[in-house]
Amino acid sequence: MTDPHALRVDLPGWAAAREVDDRRYATDDDRMRVAIEVASANVTAGSGGPFGAAIFEEASGRLVSLGANSVVRLRNSSLHAEMVAFMRAQARLGTYSLAAEGLPAHALYTSCDPCAMCLGAALWAGVRRIVCGATRQDAVALQFDEGPVFPASYEYLHSRGIEIVHGVLRAEARAVLQRYRDRGGVIYNA
Amino acid sequence: MTDPHALRVDLPGWAAAREVDDRRYATDDDRMRVAIEVASANVTAGSGGPFGAAIFEEASGRLVSLGANSVVRLRNSSLHAEMVAFMRAQARLGTYSLAAEGLPAHALYTSCDPCAMCLGAALWAGVRRIVCGATRQDAVALQFDEGPVFPASYEYLHSRGIEIVHGVLRAEARAVLQRYRDRGGVIYNA
Repeated sequence: MTDPHALRVDLPGWAAAREVDDRRYATDDDRMRVAIEVASANVTAGSGGPFGAAIFEEASGRLVSLGANSVVRLRNSSLHAEMVAFMRAQARLGTYSLAAEGLPAHALYTSCDPCAMCLGAALWAGVRRIVCGATRQDAVALQFDEGPVFPASYEYLHSRGIEIVHGVLRAEARAVLQRYRDRGGVIYNA
Repeated sequence: MTDPHALRVDLPGWAAAREVDDRRYATDDDRMRVAIEVASANVTAGSGGPFGAAIFEEASGRLVSLGANSVVRLRNSSLHAEMVAFMRAQARLGTYSLAAEGLPAHALYTSCDPCAMCLGAALWAGVRRIVCGATRQDAVALQFDEGPVFPASYEYLHSRGIEIVHGVLRAEARAVLQRYRDRGGVIYNA
């Protein structure tokens, strides 16, 4: 039978076009700039919340996928930027684990500290490294809730071999949050 | 442009057919039985992990959506049963929040305590109540990791007005986990 409630997860056209990119991004700053660029473009286009994410191959610096917050656009509370990036990377590579045998190590770059859902998802997605821009405090200042994330949550990921780095290009990432607020953007999980 | 990495989230045919259901389910046991039925059928059909979920309207007992674990089938580490149920309920109702104005209260029934990702997702999905079957310990005994979930995580949800109940029809739910192990099912997030 056809499935009447099947759903499609995609990116806005500008983001899908941006994802096609053969450049190599060498540094954390270079890669974070891509995540922030997506967050910023999402605000400008009015296509979602002020959050962007990108998955890179750690060693080569190749861009694998982008994620733009799509909660309001796709009417789906789970489609935070990080979730979209994980799903697209796995769709592209045809695997449910970015740590599958034969694959190079992957890293998540996200324009803001992940919420509880996205931090859990990172564990299952198979990334080895999580690099964050704006902080939890920056998101909370905007009235975005981040959910139950504790120091012990980060320790749990560390114990599973995942490195987490905070505050890379924080000021630039925070400026995108501020611009969203100034435009009166929806706080969908206040 | 077309989006080459857009992805589709659906249910196996048997589950999509099962979701069309006008009955009213009065009690927690009645509703949990539906979640466990999905988990069990997922194992029998070989369509995914031994986890099922269902969203009900709290007061009326109407079934709104089902979720079957689809990680391996759809090659997507985020598609735990609860996530699929949240997404489908929101797709059906056309909203990113099951707590949106004008909607009745919704509850999640899940055949096993939610992992860290799904617990965070429950907060954003807008359910008022989470009812669980098998426990975290039951999942861990099968080598399924549940991620960073702590007593403080539950307290966080409580403080946001979400009630959580554990151990409803636990033995039946655990029996499905056991049957999955006996069949040599994949532990995709060990």
